[in-house]
Amino acid sequence: MRILVTNCNTTEAMTKEIETGARAAASPGTEIVARTPKWGPESAEGWLDSFLSAAAVLDLLRTTEETFDAVVLAGFGEHGREGARELLDVPVVDITEAAAHLAGLLGRRYGVVTTLDRTCGLIEDSLHSAGVDRNCVAVVGTGLSVLELRDEERTESALLTAGLRARDAGAEVLVLGCAGMTGLDRKMSAMLDVPVVDGVAAAVRLAESLVALGLRTSRAGSYARPLEKHRAWPGA
Amino acid sequence: MRILVTNCNTTEAMTKEIETGARAAASPGTEIVARTPKWGPESAEGWLDSFLSAAAVLDLLRTTEETFDAVVLAGFGEHGREGARELLDVPVVDITEAAAHLAGLLGRRYGVVTTLDRTCGLIEDSLHSAGVDRNCVAVVGTGLSVLELRDEERTESALLTAGLRARDAGAEVLVLGCAGMTGLDRKMSAMLDVPVVDGVAAAVRLAESLVALGLRTSRAGSYARPLEKHRAWPGA
Amino acid sequence: MRILVTNCNTTEAMTKEIETGARAAASPGTEIVARTPKWGPESAEGWLDSFLSAAAVLDLLRTTEETFDAVVLAGFGEHGREGARELLDVPVVDITEAAAHLAGLLGRRYGVVTTLDRTCGLIEDSLHSAGVDRNCVAVVGTGLSVLELRDEERTESALLTAGLRARDAGAEVLVLGCAGMTGLDRKMSAMLDVPVVDGVAAAVRLAESLVALGLRTSRAGSYARPLEKHRAWPGA
Amino acid sequence: MRILVTNCNTTEAMTKEIETGARAAASPGTEIVARTPKWGPESAEGWLDSFLSAAAVLDLLRTTEETFDAVVLAGFGEHGREGARELLDVPVVDITEAAAHLAGLLGRRYGVVTTLDRTCGLIEDSLHSAGVDRNCVAVVGTGLSVLELRDEERTESALLTAGLRARDAGAEVLVLGCAGMTGLDRKMSAMLDVPVVDGVAAAVRLAESLVALGLRTSRAGSYARPLEKHRAWPGA
Amino acid sequence: MRILVTNCNTTEAMTKEIETGARAAASPGTEIVARTPKWGPESAEGWLDSFLSAAAVLDLLRTTEETFDAVVLAGFGEHGREGARELLDVPVVDITEAAAHLAGLLGRRYGVVTTLDRTCGLIEDSLHSAGVDRNCVAVVGTGLSVLELRDEERTESALLTAGLRARDAGAEVLVLGCAGMTGLDRKMSAMLDVPVVDGVAAAVRLAESLVALGLRTSRAGSYARPLEKHRAWPGA
Amino acid sequence: MRILVTNCNTTEAMTKEIETGARAAASPGTEIVARTPKWGPESAEGWLDSFLSAAAVLDLLRTTEETFDAVVLAGFGEHGREGARELLDVPVVDITEAAAHLAGLLGRRYGVVTTLDRTCGLIEDSLHSAGVDRNCVAVVGTGLSVLELRDEERTESALLTAGLRARDAGAEVLVLGCAGMTGLDRKMSAMLDVPVVDGVAAAVRLAESLVALGLRTSRAGSYARPLEKHRAWPGA
Repeated sequence: MRILVTNCNTTEAMTKEIETGARAAASPGTEIVARTPKWGPESAEGWLDSFLSAAAVLDLLRTTEETFDAVVLAGFGEHGREGARELLDVPVVDITEAAAHLAGLLGRRYGVVTTLDRTCGLIEDSLHSAGVDRNCVAVVGTGLSVLELRDEERTESALLTAGLRARDAGAEVLVLGCAGMTGLDRKMSAMLDVPVVDGVAAAVRLAESLVALGLRTSRAGSYARPLEKHRAWPGA
Repeated sequence: MRILVTNCNTTEAMTKEIETGARAAASPGTEIVARTPKWGPESAEGWLDSFLSAAAVLDLLRTTEETFDAVVLAGFGEHGREGARELLDVPVVDITEAAAHLAGLLGRRYGVVTTLDRTCGLIEDSLHSAGVDRNCVAVVGTGLSVLELRDEERTESALLTAGLRARDAGAEVLVLGCAGMTGLDRKMSAMLDVPVVDGVAAAVRLAESLVALGLRTSRAGSYARPLEKHRAWPGA
Repeated sequence: MRILVTNCNTTEAMTKEIETGARAAASPGTEIVARTPKWGPESAEGWLDSFLSAAAVLDLLRTTEETFDAVVLAGFGEHGREGARELLDVPVVDITEAAAHLAGLLGRRYGVVTTLDRTCGLIEDSLHSAGVDRNCVAVVGTGLSVLELRDEERTESALLTAGLRARDAGAEVLVLGCAGMTGLDRKMSAMLDVPVVDGVAAAVRLAESLVALGLRTSRAGSYARPLEKHRAWPGA
Repeated sequence: MRILVTNCNTTEAMTKEIETGARAAASPGTEIVARTPKWGPESAEGWLDSFLSAAAVLDLLRTTEETFDAVVLAGFGEHGREGARELLDVPVVDITEAAAHLAGLLGRRYGVVTTLDRTCGLIEDSLHSAGVDRNCVAVVGTGLSVLELRDEERTESALLTAGLRARDAGAEVLVLGCAGMTGLDRKMSAMLDVPVVDGVAAAVRLAESLVALGLRTSRAGSYARPLEKHRAWPGA
Repeated sequence: MRILVTNCNTTEAMTKEIETGARAAASPGTEIVARTPKWGPESAEGWLDSFLSAAAVLDLLRTTEETFDAVVLAGFGEHGREGARELLDVPVVDITEAAAHLAGLLGRRYGVVTTLDRTCGLIEDSLHSAGVDRNCVAVVGTGLSVLELRDEERTESALLTAGLRARDAGAEVLVLGCAGMTGLDRKMSAMLDVPVVDGVAAAVRLAESLVALGLRTSRAGSYARPLEKHRAWPGA
Repeated sequence: MRILVTNCNTTEAMTKEIETGARAAASPGTEIVARTPKWGPESAEGWLDSFLSAAAVLDLLRTTEETFDAVVLAGFGEHGREGARELLDVPVVDITEAAAHLAGLLGRRYGVVTTLDRTCGLIEDSLHSAGVDRNCVAVVGTGLSVLELRDEERTESALLTAGLRARDAGAEVLVLGCAGMTGLDRKMSAMLDVPVVDGVAAAVRLAESLVALGLRTSRAGSYARPLEKHRAWPGA
């Protein structure tokens, strides 16, 4: 089975980290291929970035000549999910919803810890439209930008603080609200003594499950194939 | 006062219709300038189109050299609204929310009649994130594509059918769920004997109101100015 | 265009202030006429006052011999709105909903700062029935009674405290939850660096917009014309 | 124990019917006193009537010189409830909420059958603010005005039709959405084979229960005693 | 009238306390019979206990040879309610919902104070399925186990702390979230100056009311009589 | 990896079918062990059965001497899930929530088709407490009892009818609302041209995913280990 994992930003180093995380989570027979959009923001932090990222990721998906059994969208809280489902015949799993789905199996209420506060609203909206917001009690920002996550010490400390706030709000499970945090889930789980779900790992396993069970995106209604029409893709 | 009205698709004829509608709705001293994105779909019908459109409209907004007092986004149910609010210092009003806001002043429950069924979900999500979904009892598709709206007779008949379905669901007010339907609001209102709100007209008036009252988008929280960073805009 | 603005209490000085605020917000060609109910409470603070006020305002509306193009109900959180819509053929805009509608265009979440804590529930219910409560994160009382608002210094200080509490709860925009606070919106906006919406101003502009667009209250369903019957109005 | 039951309209014959129903439902030691407001609408059908009725009933309550152990407000879906709680030191039970409370004990979902369609919105709002709307699946109008309920045959037939619609919507229990329908609950229950709750009966029993248990309206927060101030009651 | 009150655990002393409380609340002509399940947990604190308790209480109900006019289930937040409604032809009232129903008549928002934090989720779910959660602003644990409630001094102090937290969250009325707290409602009410509702007392009065009004559980839909089938009850 | 799959009823033939379905869905290295409760109902249809089943399944889980890496609860809409999470140190996945989680990845709205109408409420409540009800538009009964599902022809026809009703309500994905329907998912998917999710298959894959990712039930809050205390299990 081959799964395409798309980064939501143009930072190659982050694509690598996502790839590493995805591979660590994948089943033995699964091949993980990670790709970076050709254009877009170097990091996605806010709606402007997110809409730019969504179009760039969709552009990547429509122009890729390789074939895959499933696609994982590795942008936490970012837009694009529903468009990818229209565009592709294979299952599409977004890391935001994936983490929330697994978190829901591990505790009665969960919380999300993420980067800048400005991304919290995006995450809340994404969880809502995915239908998994009911048991989410908090989306807490750390004040760190996506690219500052490379500073491990600072990141750990900030995540710990945010995690405690989520716990106080009633979270029994935590979700790491950013891609490219491989390894931090286990550290944080040890520190806070609650399960911590990483979206990339969750999405890879969910994508594998859908493929194994022969389940594909519904074409009835919302995610029907895109109509034939003229679409002027940028640069094309 | 100058208001920029952006079409969400690349069809110039539709930009013209939107411009006509906006001008008809504007106050005497208001100048309306309508613009078409340089790239994107020829019509927006579904999430793929909507995300492509959102990036294209944002690209248009960031590259325009003219200055405006407010911006109206003339894509019903389309994405981009929040990104435009981050990007611009002037008020941004989306026709989806605008129509819903005025509809809420005219009856206890309202409904939306729109083009293809596949756009209903987009509209529902847009009304929800704008915080005006509570009193919406139905979003009803006509089965017509955006470009088929040029066939007036067929459009009127389809809108009538959809409008009756919305009425049956409890709608006391109707919203026209597509830009470029100038004049259809009055016809439909006469046929169904309920108020019918056109989003472009509503948005122009709301944008004027915000400007007149000196109100601007909050920079505290969600719609803070975009961070300085590298964003590779397509073709740029 | 002539707009009638009704105070919800019998305090003439407050009617004057409301009139001043309404005039400041109105478009050049709009004539503002403010009226005081002939009976009712000297200030509306709680349900008893609100129901008494509602009947008194409706009595004023049914007995006025002048004609108007629209009516603005200047009682924040007070009852009566739906009755006025049944009674009158012209658009009716309540300052509670009006402020919330505009606030929703300026930020992702808004909050209300108001007078006594006992009025918070009234405001919450009013926002709910108007369908604009979804994005309201806090209704915060200042502990000041309506008539104490004349003490400007104390009012400013109390509003500032309440505004900070709303900000902490996630409000990106604030709404002034009382009529007759002309000028305080700008001061508060400057102090807290968020947009602050005054309901009277918002309602005047929304009423003008409805009139300009030829939109009237729906007579289909909830706000059908009152049935002919015997109604013993007090004192009549 | 003495319970005051207030009609919401000025029709004495209806007060009598309400009194009869209340007495039939009361415990042996309970004295029922029914009163008619001195002014107001001859029947309450819509918001205009309801606000007029609310003030009239509150006027009745504040001017009565008798003492009671509890008050039952016998207007289904009508306003006034919260004002009465502020005004009085004894428990206040509204027939709308009372019927819903008991209905909730008898089935998983309930429905309301009422008079004119225009009252449905009032009832929905009243159930919501009372916190008992969650399990209500339908509020169905019969098309009959309040005063037409005197025509028993027509009323039974209309209620049956409305009851079947509520059943189709999932109602397992029905609530009679109007005062003064004594005896119709049993007939309808027999015809439709579901429990049918009459609000007056329910309210009398709930009022007795509160009195027996020594429970009174909370003065902390919403229903604090009205502030001392000048209130110009009409005709006073 | 005879009412069966079932304890949810096997601790006889608690059954006695519940019986005392029920008798104190009952009308003169009502006979209260309290029973203890033959098996199950000595106290119900969490889902494992609650499901074990539910089956044990249902076993008690199906095997009792006595006849009753109504049944009160005296386990706060415990499962079993809907099963008892299927099983029995007489009304069934659970103390969780009963307390919430009466609390809703006494203030705009209520809160629950209970034993261990681990039971809060059970209570929240029970209030939700009973349709009375809308106006509940807080379910607060005291950290005391059910059996520790015998230590009166510690219990009072813990309840006071929890009650203040509920008040801060907006509760205007409190509910005692455990059976067997006879007398504590009045003490707590005096200390906190808000009404405090005891579930056993509330349930007894509501059960009496249903019986007096001839209302029985609906057999249409959810609570139809159990199908004839083989059920291997444990130990039978 | 060893996964225990528990039937919710005592019908061995159904346990076998569930086992077959689970094995067909499992990854190569996964061993499936299916077990039948020693007591309980022969089929679970309604709350009485469900509570009896919950205790019986929990009894099975606490007394099993084998060790497993995860447990799948194969009762659609049945109680017990949260108790199993308290009791066990390994992940617990219920087929109700599992099917809903995967359905949420395949379409914007999903529906459930199930056996008797009386089980619909149980399913709705289970989806709600699992936090996956938001995007469920319909739970539709077929009128068939659990044991009648053996009649394949009748079952297919009834499922088809129910599936069409769910589609009409907006479902883009269907969930089979009963265990032991192996093979019917594919048939139904072919007939209705939408993805159809089988809960047993979904739960097995989700359980495998949790184990593979090292994720376990949170012990913080709701699902803390059961307290040490006397629990009189029946027959023990």
